[in-house]
This record gives sequence, C-alpha cells and structure tokens, in this order.
Amino acid sequence: MTATDTISSDHGDILRGTSCLVLGGGGFIGTHLCRGLTHRGARVHGFGRAPAYRDVLRGIRWTTAEFSDRAALARAIDGSDIIFHVLGGTTPESSNKDPVADLQGCTTAALEMLEICRISNVRKIVFVSSGGTVYGIAKTVPIPETASTEPICAYGISKLAVEKYLHLYRHLHGLDYMVLRIANPFGAYQAPDRRQGVIAAIVHRILQNEPVEIWGDGRVVRDFIYIEDVVSALIEVVGYCGPYRVFNVGSGVGRSILDVVAEIAMVLDKPRLVPIHKPGRVTDVPINILDISLIERETGWKPKTEWRRALAITASWLQSMSKSAL
Amino acid sequence: MTATDTISSDHGDILRGTSCLVLGGGGFIGTHLCRGLTHRGARVHGFGRAPAYRDVLRGIRWTTAEFSDRAALARAIDGSDIIFHVLGGTTPESSNKDPVADLQGCTTAALEMLEICRISNVRKIVFVSSGGTVYGIAKTVPIPETASTEPICAYGISKLAVEKYLHLYRHLHGLDYMVLRIANPFGAYQAPDRRQGVIAAIVHRILQNEPVEIWGDGRVVRDFIYIEDVVSALIEVVGYCGPYRVFNVGSGVGRSILDVVAEIAMVLDKPRLVPIHKPGRVTDVPINILDISLIERETGWKPKTEWRRALAITASWLQSMSKSAL
Repeated sequence: MTATDTISSDHGDILRGTSCLVLGGGGFIGTHLCRGLTHRGARVHGFGRAPAYRDVLRGIRWTTAEFSDRAALARAIDGSDIIFHVLGGTTPESSNKDPVADLQGCTTAALEMLEICRISNVRKIVFVSSGGTVYGIAKTVPIPETASTEPICAYGISKLAVEKYLHLYRHLHGLDYMVLRIANPFGAYQAPDRRQGVIAAIVHRILQNEPVEIWGDGRVVRDFIYIEDVVSALIEVVGYCGPYRVFNVGSGVGRSILDVVAEIAMVLDKPRLVPIHKPGRVTDVPINILDISLIERETGWKPKTEWRRALAITASWLQSMSKSAL
Repeated sequence: MTATDTISSDHGDILRGTSCLVLGGGGFIGTHLCRGLTHRGARVHGFGRAPAYRDVLRGIRWTTAEFSDRAALARAIDGSDIIFHVLGGTTPESSNKDPVADLQGCTTAALEMLEICRISNVRKIVFVSSGGTVYGIAKTVPIPETASTEPICAYGISKLAVEKYLHLYRHLHGLDYMVLRIANPFGAYQAPDRRQGVIAAIVHRILQNEPVEIWGDGRVVRDFIYIEDVVSALIEVVGYCGPYRVFNVGSGVGRSILDVVAEIAMVLDKPRLVPIHKPGRVTDVPINILDISLIERETGWKPKTEWRRALAITASWLQSMSKSAL
C-alpha cells in the first residue's frame, strides 16, 4: 500500500483548497501527513526544524523555525484554516531527565500557540497526543478514552496538559479542536537513531549487524500502528462534527516486544536472532493497548494495513536507507 | 469553635517535633494551617509573600520570598519533614486572562520545587488542589475523585498538572504526597477585597453598606467548607498511609449563591437585602458539590462545623476588621 491508497477515502473534498499548517511537518508523522494532505488537494505549509527527509517534501511550502519562535509561528498561523500539531519534542525517557524543559518546550509553547490562534481565523486544531503515555499504568486493557490519566513520564503530563488547554480554549473562545491519542506508530521516515520507535531501532540494528537490545524481559506489550493508518485518522477527524474531542488511535492489538523482535527477525530472514536484555526502564508501563472503538463508531475510521505487510514495508525502507548510506 | 477545638483529634503525636514548611503560609489557608500545626506541637516554618495578618503568626519562623525564588526555596526545604503547599497564586477568573503566566507561576514553579524535594529528605508533600475547578462542568454531583477532569479555567489546569507531577515524582523518586481537592473554603483571614471567597466578599459589602453584586442569576451551586475543617483535613492526611493519594475536601452540601446571600443577610440582620445581578461568568461551572465519602472512609475525617455557626464566626471576624479599620 502507498500513501495514495490509504488516503483516498470519501472526505477529500473537505481538504481541497484548505490551508493546512503542519507544526512538526518535518518529523516522522509530519512528513507522512504533509504528503497525505498535499495528495488530498490541501495547500500545505510545513513548520518546524529542518525536515529529516527534505526531498520527500519537495514542493511543499516550508518554514524552518523553532516552535518557541512566536513571531514565526504567528506568521505561519495567519491565514491557516486547519492546524495539525504533530510535534514530538522530547521522548518519554528523556523527558524525565528535565521535566521543566519538557513542560516549557511542549506545554508552554503550545499554550502560546493557542493564544495566537485565539485571535486568528483557524477553524480547527488537530493535536497529536500520546496514547502510549497519557494513561500511565493501565488498570484495564484495552484502554478507553475515559480511563484515568496518570502518566509516569513528564512527556505524558505535558501532552495531557495541552489537551486540557485545548478544551479550555474551546470553552472560552470557541476554538475547535480534536485530540488523537496515538499509540506506537511505525513506518518509513522514522529515524532509527532517535529512539523514537522500537521497530525502527530493532530493524536498524539488525541491518547494521549490531546486537538487538531490549529493555527488561521483553514482555511489555505495546499497541503498534502503521503510520499510514495514523495519517488517515488525522485527516478523517478534520471533518468530524460529533460530540467527542478525544479519540484513541491504535491498532487495538497488543504485541510483546519479544514477539515483535521475532517477527522482524522473520521478515529480515534472521531466524536465529537472540536479543540482549538490558535493565527495565521505570518509564515503561507493562501493557498498553488502546480501545479504538470510539473513533471507529464515530467516524468509520479503522486501521487497514495488515501488520506483517506494514513491517515488511518499514523494513524495506530502512534497508534502502541503509544501502544508500553506504 | 476555635482552632484549638478543631484540631484536637488523635493524630497529634505524628506532628509533635516535626518540621513543617508551609508554602503560602501567609495566605488565608496558610495562616490557619500555621496556627493549627503550631498548636499541635510541630515546628512550623512559613514561606511566601509577607503575611496579610502578621500578628496572628507571631513566633512562627518566617521567610518572605517569592515561590519562584529557587535558592530561598531550597534553603527552606532543607531540613523540612513535611511540606504543605497551600499557595493560591491567581484566581480562577484572573488565570484565564494570562494562562501562560498562570502555568509558569503555579505549575513550573511547583515542578522546580519537586526537583529540589527529590534530593531532600522530605517525607511527604501535602498539596492543596482545587475541588472547585479541576473537574470543570460536572456530569454528576456530588463529584467523586474519579470523575473526569476538564477544567474551564487555566487555574484548574495548572493545579491538575501539579497533581500529575506529584504522581510522577512518587513513581520515579519515591517522594510521598497527598492531594486535597478543596471546595470553597471560608472563614476568618480571608481577605474580602481579593476576590478569593464569595462569602467574605458579600459580608464585606454589606458591612460597607455597598450593594451586593452577584454574577449571573445566583443559581450556581457551590460547596462551602469552613476553614477549620479544611485545616483538620490537611493535618489528618499527614499520617495517612492508605492506597489513595487524592481526596476531595468539602462539606458535601450544595448551596446556591442566592441562598448564601439570604443566609448572610439573616446573620447580619439585613432581611430586606436585594442583590444586584451582573452578567454570568464563563468560568463559573453551574454546580459543584464534592463527594467526600472517600476521605471520610479512609481517614475518619469529616467536616464538623455547623454552617450557620461558621457563617456567624466569619461575619463576626469581618465586623471586627471593619471596625478596626475605622
């Protein structure tokens, strides 16, 4: 499947000619989203640090600036209809080393963005939150959107706080929004060396003939979702007018890290691979599987990409990157 | 009833000789708490802006400093066993005018405090959160601690974020804490001119022969709790070792603003008082009554002060202040 296949659903007209600002457009999710939006006829403006894969975004209007650069942000927001906020910022692990910096870089900066949007003509903000961290240690799985939110990393708290401010600005100023709490996305353009995604990291190490290291006993369970399915959800909710503002976006299926390693080994034809176990991390929740029935019911969206096919596409992309780096 | 009566329960020994730091000790709740702790044999250190009623805190160790003054805060925390964080900061209404400042002044500063506590010997932090704002517009009343939290003021978001960071620091660093989500406290030492409490404001205006103004139709319902009952809850949870970390603290009884005005008019012998209605405020939730069964069950605490008696004591204190100002 290509981006073209995935995003050719019925809602194309909503985006045609719409001015879409993608904050964090040069990152993993952002790169796919910019392409998906462009393909749907939107006028796309990417904003953020220099794109990791600039060629892929050729022809897309681009502003290189920090999220904290209010003047640049205000110029970019001016005239935008829809804002996609897909900035990752830190990672769950690194956020705990400097929670104050995480709060400033994520929440304070997002709040300053909302202050700019308040006096703009922005129609909707679509915010990528973290389905993997906002809930903390789940009491039941799959986790519904109504579950308690007790993050065990600063990253999750910062994301959660932004969700609350979005709710506040809608109440006070009528600024519409959607929050998507995304599980663990994977696919092409996920940089394997940035600790962003465990699948990219594992594939990369195997391709480099390096030992595969996993944290703890490998029994922690995660909900992996292919990036094109994430993009289709982000696009789907632009036209959503129902009563909910927060949706989980995942596969709804849990897989242990050990199983994922085994599946990747199969895809890469390394049947005898044995991972090395490192000490477990205090920020890793034991299990995270999202209940995705709400977004399915409300919008009709559901993940479409078959797991092994998605893994194969991802591995294939990393292989091509690995070769081109030689 | 005096402070002495209220706090003479069975838990005195826990506090005797304990070093208690009261952040915001010069404010409304802080003043009462400093007195209550001193009476229980604790070594009390008040910290914050200059106390409004300095005479009342005579003999108590005091540091005048801003909460954001990290060096002063670190010196005050050093050697403290228990920290009571009862700083109010802004008000729900004013917070929406500058949410970024509210986030910085409340959440970022509290997070910096936690970073200091992490490397200290603090045994427990008792944090005063806002039962009136963290829940937002309640779906059911009385509101249990497990209800969803969707504040409609920045003040409530800042408080909620601090709750989440407390949870995180306990998980990561073993720093123990308790959160009390306090309803609408009232009593002596609540400055009537700071928009902190509607009861103080109404009594004050009547005593000044000024018209009583209420926002909206006066049918909004609030849960008022007498300050001495708040103090007894704050002291009670120091020794609590059960599984919960968040308790509601209120009277569990709802009263409309119109009823409160009528009751105050009765106490002050102004039976013909007619309030003036001003436009409703967007930050006012229609109804807020806290479910206090959890703290009752877990600690045995319950509000003890009879409503009319508490009103009479409050009115009497404001009368004495009003006279002494002449």
